[in-house]
Amino acid sequence: MTKKETGTLLSFRPAIRVLDATLRDGGLVNDFRFSDAFVRALFAADAAAGVDYMELGYKADRDIFDEQKFGKWKFCREDDILSVLGENTTGVKLACMADVGRCNHVRDIGQKGSSPIDMYRIATYINTIPAAVEMIEHCNKMGYETTVNIMAISKETEKEIDLALEMLGQSPVKAIYVVDSYGSIYPEEMRVIAEKYLEAGEKYGKEIGIHAHNNQNLAFANTAECTALGVNYLDATVNGMGRGAGNCALELLLGFLKNPKYKLLHILKFIEAGYMQALRNEGAVWGYDLPYLLTGLFNRHPSAAIRYIREGRTDIVNYMQELLDQE
Amino acid sequence: MTKKETGTLLSFRPAIRVLDATLRDGGLVNDFRFSDAFVRALFAADAAAGVDYMELGYKADRDIFDEQKFGKWKFCREDDILSVLGENTTGVKLACMADVGRCNHVRDIGQKGSSPIDMYRIATYINTIPAAVEMIEHCNKMGYETTVNIMAISKETEKEIDLALEMLGQSPVKAIYVVDSYGSIYPEEMRVIAEKYLEAGEKYGKEIGIHAHNNQNLAFANTAECTALGVNYLDATVNGMGRGAGNCALELLLGFLKNPKYKLLHILKFIEAGYMQALRNEGAVWGYDLPYLLTGLFNRHPSAAIRYIREGRTDIVNYMQELLDQE
Repeated sequence: MTKKETGTLLSFRPAIRVLDATLRDGGLVNDFRFSDAFVRALFAADAAAGVDYMELGYKADRDIFDEQKFGKWKFCREDDILSVLGENTTGVKLACMADVGRCNHVRDIGQKGSSPIDMYRIATYINTIPAAVEMIEHCNKMGYETTVNIMAISKETEKEIDLALEMLGQSPVKAIYVVDSYGSIYPEEMRVIAEKYLEAGEKYGKEIGIHAHNNQNLAFANTAECTALGVNYLDATVNGMGRGAGNCALELLLGFLKNPKYKLLHILKFIEAGYMQALRNEGAVWGYDLPYLLTGLFNRHPSAAIRYIREGRTDIVNYMQELLDQE
Repeated sequence: MTKKETGTLLSFRPAIRVLDATLRDGGLVNDFRFSDAFVRALFAADAAAGVDYMELGYKADRDIFDEQKFGKWKFCREDDILSVLGENTTGVKLACMADVGRCNHVRDIGQKGSSPIDMYRIATYINTIPAAVEMIEHCNKMGYETTVNIMAISKETEKEIDLALEMLGQSPVKAIYVVDSYGSIYPEEMRVIAEKYLEAGEKYGKEIGIHAHNNQNLAFANTAECTALGVNYLDATVNGMGRGAGNCALELLLGFLKNPKYKLLHILKFIEAGYMQALRNEGAVWGYDLPYLLTGLFNRHPSAAIRYIREGRTDIVNYMQELLDQE
């Protein structure tokens, strides 16, 4: 991965890796209550579509989160994964997210051995980077690939981001992700941020990734822009399913990428089979809408917007005032 | 308008002009059947929000189109405009689109005099540019501002576009629009196209505009990218209402623009009052969806996708094959 290999719209980079985060980011919408049939069908679709990684969910600490209140993909126990997916004979690697402070990695992430999990994705805020590095080192020592998401960077100073990149650059992590947690970053800003990450990546031999949110309907655009610059690890979800306004839609991303290995058809087949519609019928709600536009515009966590949608409110003008009152 | 004045995300260009095309592009969804109350409320919202132009609809030829089959905004008779909006005492200028070959401009576009219409927007394909120039010259002579939309450029060669820009550059037109008719253009391509138009604009003293479609969910992203480069005439519609996948959403655009004159609040008020929801309740359907992704990806007119949606089809895999069979 170097900037020299960015290519053009007609060429492609073999170094590109697509990660389907539907179960993980989408799990935040339905408390990880995906049926086994859903997970099997998605896995088969990802394999047929040439997707490189499927993220199964979180490795959440069972001392913090009640297992009765969430589906099993919040915890990603090895035996659950094996009982649903069996032995992985596909080209798709399995990933699992571990949040700093919400994962007991020493207890729950053991030797890779026969674990079906191939990669741990460490999610951290800027102020917990040392803890993230410790988790990265642990997972690396245990034999897993690792990536790291630095969240909420739109609230941080350039100096702090630089420092974080230096620290992570010296860790054994494979890829460092640009994360637009609040969906507040416009493409022209995204390019500046991606260039900064790519510079650090070049210095330390790390891949750079992009995890975008759709609060201002820019998740796909920002992902495409990052790809054009040389960002190789690309997160997306089917139908853009994800917390609040959701993510970059996998179907848009696979249509855009020119790598012959990616086959949009199989994601369309999965959608046509009704799996995503069934989630919506069960009450899962996600996607761009006015309250997310406003949290994105004001660079805020989408929690207020999620509440607004859940409560069925339509008083968008009052809601805008509530957000401004919190400035 | 020069490239030197493009500014940054924190600055703004006074030369920016926002055009609300809801009645015109949105009219393609509901055959221009907007109630007088809707049109008055939208006009008041645009005035309060600082929108520069409101496009009322088309000046369609009544010999070609049956007046019984469409709402009045397909024809934009001066007396209809005056009876609904009264004398225009706002800062919003009124615009009307005239398609080459579908408008009897000699008969229907007379002296500006007391006409409530301020600007005619000529829409043309590349192969009818000479007819477009004739219409531009006519409207200019009659005392109107004019702009021109060159449609379907994603199907044209660079040489043809260059030639079109030369011809239009020598006409009295005020602004030349980049139009992504099929929603097939990615931001990195859009920047190349916008730079070409801006160069011609600088050479001939013309403003450049952007009219984007949302087939691949890129309408706002492409509009924002063009804005950053120095494109000053920006088309948008409330809730992105427009044919098929629709347009750049006015509420996203006004949030993005830093010009203090633009006030998003008033567009949110209009939406909150339920005007757009009422159109949806009456059966109007628009917005990004899978069949539009595919026509965008394959660089096709969205007509097949519009039919797919109208017929309530869900066999997206068959539909994709149908599109490919037509290659």
